[in-house]
Amino acid sequence: MADSTNKKRLVIIGGGFGGLNLAKHVDKSRWQVVLVDRNNYHSFPPLFYQVASSGLEPASISFPFRRELNGRNYEGCSFRMGTVETIDVNAKTVRTQYETIPYDKLVIAAGTTNNFFGIENLEKTVFTLKSTTEAIRARNEVLDRLERAAIIPDKSKRAHLLTFVVVGGGPAGVEIAGALGEMKRYIIKREYPSIDPDEVKVILVEGADVLLQAMGPKAAEDALLGLRQLLVDVQLGKVMKSYKDGVVTFGDGSELRTDTVIWTAGVVGVNFKFEGAQPEMERGQRFKVDNNCRIEGLEDVYAIGDIAYMTTPAYPSGHPQVAQVALQQGACLAGNLSSPEGHELPFVYHDKGSMATIGRNRAVVNMGKMYLSGRVAWWAWLVVHLLSILGMRNRTVVFINWMWNYFNFSAGLRLLLRPDRYPLRHYWSEE
Amino acid sequence: MADSTNKKRLVIIGGGFGGLNLAKHVDKSRWQVVLVDRNNYHSFPPLFYQVASSGLEPASISFPFRRELNGRNYEGCSFRMGTVETIDVNAKTVRTQYETIPYDKLVIAAGTTNNFFGIENLEKTVFTLKSTTEAIRARNEVLDRLERAAIIPDKSKRAHLLTFVVVGGGPAGVEIAGALGEMKRYIIKREYPSIDPDEVKVILVEGADVLLQAMGPKAAEDALLGLRQLLVDVQLGKVMKSYKDGVVTFGDGSELRTDTVIWTAGVVGVNFKFEGAQPEMERGQRFKVDNNCRIEGLEDVYAIGDIAYMTTPAYPSGHPQVAQVALQQGACLAGNLSSPEGHELPFVYHDKGSMATIGRNRAVVNMGKMYLSGRVAWWAWLVVHLLSILGMRNRTVVFINWMWNYFNFSAGLRLLLRPDRYPLRHYWSEE
Repeated sequence: MADSTNKKRLVIIGGGFGGLNLAKHVDKSRWQVVLVDRNNYHSFPPLFYQVASSGLEPASISFPFRRELNGRNYEGCSFRMGTVETIDVNAKTVRTQYETIPYDKLVIAAGTTNNFFGIENLEKTVFTLKSTTEAIRARNEVLDRLERAAIIPDKSKRAHLLTFVVVGGGPAGVEIAGALGEMKRYIIKREYPSIDPDEVKVILVEGADVLLQAMGPKAAEDALLGLRQLLVDVQLGKVMKSYKDGVVTFGDGSELRTDTVIWTAGVVGVNFKFEGAQPEMERGQRFKVDNNCRIEGLEDVYAIGDIAYMTTPAYPSGHPQVAQVALQQGACLAGNLSSPEGHELPFVYHDKGSMATIGRNRAVVNMGKMYLSGRVAWWAWLVVHLLSILGMRNRTVVFINWMWNYFNFSAGLRLLLRPDRYPLRHYWSEE
Repeated sequence: MADSTNKKRLVIIGGGFGGLNLAKHVDKSRWQVVLVDRNNYHSFPPLFYQVASSGLEPASISFPFRRELNGRNYEGCSFRMGTVETIDVNAKTVRTQYETIPYDKLVIAAGTTNNFFGIENLEKTVFTLKSTTEAIRARNEVLDRLERAAIIPDKSKRAHLLTFVVVGGGPAGVEIAGALGEMKRYIIKREYPSIDPDEVKVILVEGADVLLQAMGPKAAEDALLGLRQLLVDVQLGKVMKSYKDGVVTFGDGSELRTDTVIWTAGVVGVNFKFEGAQPEMERGQRFKVDNNCRIEGLEDVYAIGDIAYMTTPAYPSGHPQVAQVALQQGACLAGNLSSPEGHELPFVYHDKGSMATIGRNRAVVNMGKMYLSGRVAWWAWLVVHLLSILGMRNRTVVFINWMWNYFNFSAGLRLLLRPDRYPLRHYWSEE
């Protein structure tokens, strides 16, 4: 496995926040780094909801891995596109749909996907926001509803088309509901003259009694207020049980007719098949790791980011599944793997705060003991996200789009870009 | 059909250059204008090849109809998304997959689609550039070939993956071949270190003996030279006969193994079913129109742009199928339909010239008696196209992308954005 220069091979599965930061910081004179990802680009999940709501183009928040790895910080890193299906811990290989890749050490940074909690058919009937592809699909479906409602005279069919149900009151749910609320408030009247804005219903359903549970009571209250000002019907303490034939059924027995359900209610670690030994798993299909990110039960295999479950005295029930944990675990593991003496520092999470946006001039921000909301929070949110996007070109384009949307009270990219009639030739079998 | 203000209804099928210009200039105090299009956005076909070659995002060259129609010039125009399938000239209605729309006068401005000349299965096996969707698909497929070639050791499989065959030597074929040539020349070495640029073959096949036939011998020569400098293998006087199991067969009996064929070799008018009377058709499935754009054999039905076939003394075998003809026919028909006295002026085409780009600093431009090539022509091409794109935001974003690509010798948007696993719910049946 060692290459001609005697370096050992570090394989990283997933080029998200954690995996890419690890590749960036690990000592490339000691490690031959191979990044494997199912996509050929790094993406920026905090803004998927803006792709879904036509505020941004996918390309503005995506960055081709090969271009990034071509940069100074990654000298000697290589990229291989593929979906890892099987990990053989005896042979020390990972297998994608295309090839078998040997490793000396393996880091799983593949993140999470949607958790449908076993509800029948949900995967096929609801729309989700856990990948660029899913966000584009959600955008297309929402635009399709508006176009069809605009030309259908039947009042009840229009009502089904114009009812948008968002399930889950975390940041993703709050953000997409807010964006749909802004659409109802600012865009419908101007651009869909045959639709009365009052016909559009945006309903946010959350099983708990508060929104943004992780952000504390103030944020919960402001989010609720903000969404209600955008005419979003927030229903707390309500659990969705099924979605069949256009009818959502809730735990309390009530029903709701809708053609569009956006599901943000849960995540689960990406699934791998293991050969040779089985890792210890925690709830949400996450790998149980020690405080050096080693997966318990396996050798030379690590996990970082959303897919890792690490408990520390400060976080007895695991760390939050957020970008900052992934970034910091990537950097910490990079340091440990780079130490010539094999010194390992345990991971300590430095919480830099959390934020969520609700709409134009409306956001909530927790930073240490400071809490911000409203216009200041919104601008803070904007600056932080802008600076976190990879690449100057992307930042410029995102900035132009945001300013354009801000001054025009509009999301300018409402394009229903249908997929081609023919499935793409090669990758349908890959997933 | 007359609405409350007694206006008659003008239905326009297709919001391309011709249809949109007609809607803009026709007198809205006389006509209730209804624009019907299968997409919810206006697109810019001259730059589809840049979407396919990762130079631009689809959104940069697309513009939502509802936003455009919301502008000053279109007061009273309305939009209905749908694919017109049937035109009933007795009942004076058009039928989409969703509804039946009555008209007083009808203008067909639906443009053209690919002509496969009856070659078996070609529609499913080659990639095309006649719509935004098709261009995205071509981009994804090209990127897929590169990613897979980068990880496959087998030399012969790599050769098939890295052979890109472009069929057709008109502007679209020359432009996409040039863009692929630039990829081979500038990008492969830098970002695909496991691929030798010499392994990449870009082959342009044209049945005639010259490229860009419509632009004259100088342009043909410069295009040929430019493409050869970009290491494109230009094969003239060669006709493709079939493409089966990864093998292209030519008229001269020769064969070529490739996994990627981009077909730009012909167009044919979009197809409609007529009830009540049949229009007179010309070759390429175009409507034969008089010099007021009236379709011969029908009443109150007009055709403009690529789908119309109009002969005049200056153009005895029909007008070229280019944006300028469509724009000018749209404006001319708008004037005729707006005349209170019913005066009609015959269409006279003012040829403003033609241009094609080959690559960085390489283009060919015909303007009246003037012929430009090289760097000056390229900048002229750039300015003309930039000014022709709808919307200030789009122009800004396109300009940033072009400058970025220019100074980086790169196309920055190489994202393989796969479609979702599930076909979008509603529109597969529509096409």
